[in-house]
Amino acid sequence: MFDPFSLFLLDLQNRITSELEEIEALDIVDPLSGALTPGKFAEDVWRGEILGGGGRTRVLEGGRVLERGGVNVSDVHGILSPELAEKMPGTSPEFRAAGISLVLHPRNPHAPTVHANFRMICRGSPSAPERIWFGGGADLTPIYLEEEDAVHFHSVWKKVCDEFKDTASYEKMKEDCDRYFYLPHRREARGIGGIFYDYVESNPERMAEFSRAAGGSFAGAYMPILRKRAQKPYTKEEREFQLWRRGRYVEFNLVYDRGTQFGLKTGGRIESILMSLPPLVKYSYNFEPIAGSPEAKIIEALRTPRDWLAESGGSG
Amino acid sequence: MFDPFSLFLLDLQNRITSELEEIEALDIVDPLSGALTPGKFAEDVWRGEILGGGGRTRVLEGGRVLERGGVNVSDVHGILSPELAEKMPGTSPEFRAAGISLVLHPRNPHAPTVHANFRMICRGSPSAPERIWFGGGADLTPIYLEEEDAVHFHSVWKKVCDEFKDTASYEKMKEDCDRYFYLPHRREARGIGGIFYDYVESNPERMAEFSRAAGGSFAGAYMPILRKRAQKPYTKEEREFQLWRRGRYVEFNLVYDRGTQFGLKTGGRIESILMSLPPLVKYSYNFEPIAGSPEAKIIEALRTPRDWLAESGGSG
Repeated sequence: MFDPFSLFLLDLQNRITSELEEIEALDIVDPLSGALTPGKFAEDVWRGEILGGGGRTRVLEGGRVLERGGVNVSDVHGILSPELAEKMPGTSPEFRAAGISLVLHPRNPHAPTVHANFRMICRGSPSAPERIWFGGGADLTPIYLEEEDAVHFHSVWKKVCDEFKDTASYEKMKEDCDRYFYLPHRREARGIGGIFYDYVESNPERMAEFSRAAGGSFAGAYMPILRKRAQKPYTKEEREFQLWRRGRYVEFNLVYDRGTQFGLKTGGRIESILMSLPPLVKYSYNFEPIAGSPEAKIIEALRTPRDWLAESGGSG
Repeated sequence: MFDPFSLFLLDLQNRITSELEEIEALDIVDPLSGALTPGKFAEDVWRGEILGGGGRTRVLEGGRVLERGGVNVSDVHGILSPELAEKMPGTSPEFRAAGISLVLHPRNPHAPTVHANFRMICRGSPSAPERIWFGGGADLTPIYLEEEDAVHFHSVWKKVCDEFKDTASYEKMKEDCDRYFYLPHRREARGIGGIFYDYVESNPERMAEFSRAAGGSFAGAYMPILRKRAQKPYTKEEREFQLWRRGRYVEFNLVYDRGTQFGLKTGGRIESILMSLPPLVKYSYNFEPIAGSPEAKIIEALRTPRDWLAESGGSG
């Protein structure tokens, strides 16, 4: 089951990075930085230092549309450390994990940051595993709220889930996403959500199919938003707000994200894990947006999770 | 014991912020940003939302010398949450904690970032405490290594410790500092160290005196370095390196620092806790300094802790 999944992930990475390079090549002039050279992904093929297997990391920095973006595929296996062994389902010391993980930070504050991740993990020998489970999802982090983008993004994930009604519930995955990408100390969500699932063990054949369908839907969920928003004029003040909002992204990823904590503390490939961090971040003391401003509108949205499809009649 | 300590901390805060504002007013022209207005500390006096007591936070942002700096005094008391109660020495549900905490991020890449912290904590009623302990220290995080600064900084702390030989050992506190301010996933120290101590319970009267002496030594340890380095010319490339190095500071504070984790997870005042973060930070993929460069020299120093006073004959 792993080998075909792993091949699918490499192909998905190709498709996603190709479309992003296509978007980079569009005739876009950044309002603040001017005419920039279209970005290209640089590739690092690596082998695990501690674990067997390896991965293919693709990173684009300083592009015309993406200020920083990473799309990483990895397929590692080996023996679990006792600490890790305790935290995972099952009893065998062996494991294998294959997944794709991406984070894109556009330059334009009107284009949202996005994260997606699809993985298959097994405990025991991969040829006769003791247990297999799936995790993943995709979520959107706008700097400025564009309601139609949120509705579009969610409607794509709802459509995929609906095709797998026997295995995947959009409503549950949407709620789990809101619960997971949350900063308790800020009482704020990281973004406007999407779908999230983890430790799904039942019906692995169907879940592998679902993961492929979901992975394959990423481009449709995000690229139209990126194409549209990357062209929108923006001001210096909007750029400042973006740098400030990115600070929250760092807070979530370093303080709460299980995948990041897990990776850093278990000898993962640091630079592949931390490619999720934004390119440029500003921290400032006690910033509060002016009531009624577009800045206040997104903060409010982050404080009160919404059913994005309710109003458009799509979530019933 | 708490009330006089708390008064001492407020006075110490006054002295430190005054001297920093004096330095801000020096005739310094920033090589990249030009002539800037001298910064002033803004003050927030706050009361605990969950806990009793409160604090006085002073923050300076966008100054001539300090790009961001915070000096915070707090004195809080109340009932420990069960989660917290378990992690602290003693059994009583009551506690009180008084301390000063500061982090200064200069604008000039040749001026090091500094952190210091001195606190007294008791479990049980503050008038008849079950247990009292002390924690604190000071450590320096240069962007570029200036060996004479490291020697000067350490020699001040050694001198204070030597005056309290019965209660404080420079050698132990220096080693504990190197051990604490360490990023295991990078196999790098955060900076070039200083002193660190925690949960010191024996001889509280003497430890209160030591804490005052150490707090009072901060200015002598850091200000001469700041005055000297804040005037040094620097290049755009050195500024870039600074922004990149600051990313490690964020990594340490959000992933490992016990105080930050503790504060964020127990309803501390977020903006006072996170004033430790640098003003502007850059993340980039897989950066490696050129062998033999000043950039490589500091990274190497961070990978191999040194006895800064050995060579100068001061540590024997």
